[in-house]
Amino acid sequence: MKKKLNKIARDTNLFLNSFLYNQKKTELIKPMRYGLLPGGKKIRSKLIVDVGKIFKTNYKTLIKIGAAVECIHAYSLIHDDLPCMDNDSLRRGKLSTHKKFGEATAILAGNSLLTIAFEILSNLNLNNNIKIKLISLLSKCSGHTGIAGGQFLDLNFEKKNIPLKKIISMQIKKTGKLFSFSCMAPLIVSNNKKNLKKFDKIGNDIGLLFQLVDDLIDYTGNSKKVGKKTKKDLKKGKATLISLLGYENTIKYTKNLKLKIFKNLDIFGDKAKDLKNTINYILIRSK
Amino acid sequence: MKKKLNKIARDTNLFLNSFLYNQKKTELIKPMRYGLLPGGKKIRSKLIVDVGKIFKTNYKTLIKIGAAVECIHAYSLIHDDLPCMDNDSLRRGKLSTHKKFGEATAILAGNSLLTIAFEILSNLNLNNNIKIKLISLLSKCSGHTGIAGGQFLDLNFEKKNIPLKKIISMQIKKTGKLFSFSCMAPLIVSNNKKNLKKFDKIGNDIGLLFQLVDDLIDYTGNSKKVGKKTKKDLKKGKATLISLLGYENTIKYTKNLKLKIFKNLDIFGDKAKDLKNTINYILIRSK
Repeated sequence: MKKKLNKIARDTNLFLNSFLYNQKKTELIKPMRYGLLPGGKKIRSKLIVDVGKIFKTNYKTLIKIGAAVECIHAYSLIHDDLPCMDNDSLRRGKLSTHKKFGEATAILAGNSLLTIAFEILSNLNLNNNIKIKLISLLSKCSGHTGIAGGQFLDLNFEKKNIPLKKIISMQIKKTGKLFSFSCMAPLIVSNNKKNLKKFDKIGNDIGLLFQLVDDLIDYTGNSKKVGKKTKKDLKKGKATLISLLGYENTIKYTKNLKLKIFKNLDIFGDKAKDLKNTINYILIRSK
Repeated sequence: MKKKLNKIARDTNLFLNSFLYNQKKTELIKPMRYGLLPGGKKIRSKLIVDVGKIFKTNYKTLIKIGAAVECIHAYSLIHDDLPCMDNDSLRRGKLSTHKKFGEATAILAGNSLLTIAFEILSNLNLNNNIKIKLISLLSKCSGHTGIAGGQFLDLNFEKKNIPLKKIISMQIKKTGKLFSFSCMAPLIVSNNKKNLKKFDKIGNDIGLLFQLVDDLIDYTGNSKKVGKKTKKDLKKGKATLISLLGYENTIKYTKNLKLKIFKNLDIFGDKAKDLKNTINYILIRSK
């Protein structure tokens, strides 16, 4: 698992490096690279490759789509860390982008990574119809119905009593939508309409699982190991499932969620082995 | 001229209203609408229609493309007004978005308008190949090689001695690229490759003209009439052509620039009449 994840991370970064290298040189490239590279674990890219394996989608294409997703992910992290948002000074084991380059530059670098994602997708060597579908779906996952909308709710739920259903809906927007894009993209590339809705749902569930484990790590982890500050949620009064259900029940909840996802994947038999391994990895990861 | 501009503004807002109405309801729609509508003069949309008239492009399609451009324009204004950027509290005669809704919400609403622009383009009733070309070009105009990159330079040029060439290159990124997109889009829709480069250049020049007049208005205008604070550039030590050439020489510069653009349009004869009227309007506008 770790070996496969590392290879995907390496291939993704190789592509991103060369894509940025071929861009016109501007002063924003440096802060963009800083927020994007070497980047995180590339779980989203791994999911794209895993689902692609079930449907025999071209690996190189999937890496490029994953690179676009990583640009969106980096944009959202750079903006989330801003003082007016979560005010985090540490990210992926180094200073967050605004701490290193200032707020204005961080906002502009984030915006530029967002637009670069669409440039990557429009450059893909694929049928134009497929590219339009990918672009349309990614735009819906990145704005007010996805990441930006989820972040708005996350900030506005702080220090309030929020019911379970609303917390889950916030987390699906904030994290789930991009996971859902990652699980649907290989099917869009393979023109497989039959399973699209199923993988939309699976993506949302994996995203929720990922976010729950993130919250558990924040609750128990130590900052040095995790690469960002921990125990922030409690301090900020963030609305998480832990704040509502408690630690033990949240662990139970994640285990049940995993079983539900696995059940949905059973019909794909051995072909879904890599995907299941990734889901297990998400569950046991410690950073 | 004013009548035609008003009709385009009305049609653009009608489309934007209905597009936003058909979006999933989220809490960010309100601040997005606030920053976007009723919006400004719609000069960019007018240019799209004017160039489209030369090449007989479908009006309804052009209005939709103009609407996407207005989303990008609104995103950039919302972000430019932030305290860490130009720190403006007034925009289009009302409180700027962050003053009304807070900084975090303004950033997220801006991001969402940026992604909505790509959603509008991917929804167009056009050949997919054309849509991909439009999306690719718009992404280049909106990120580090365009608006975001220009804003970075603008902020970093403050209180410094910047040579003419660099100021112009900053203003082309900050304003010219989106004008250039507006002038090229109708040709892309009409699959007219022959004139594409010519209208790229014309768009850059019109954008520069627009920005110069903007600077002149800031220099001489009164805040109530203009709808935003004036005499800001001087206070902030912004690098503008006025700061370098002086007021009179800047006026001369804009007049020469206009003549140059008109000369480039001569081969289109009467068909370019509306476009020339718009350029004249840009030159004599007072807000």
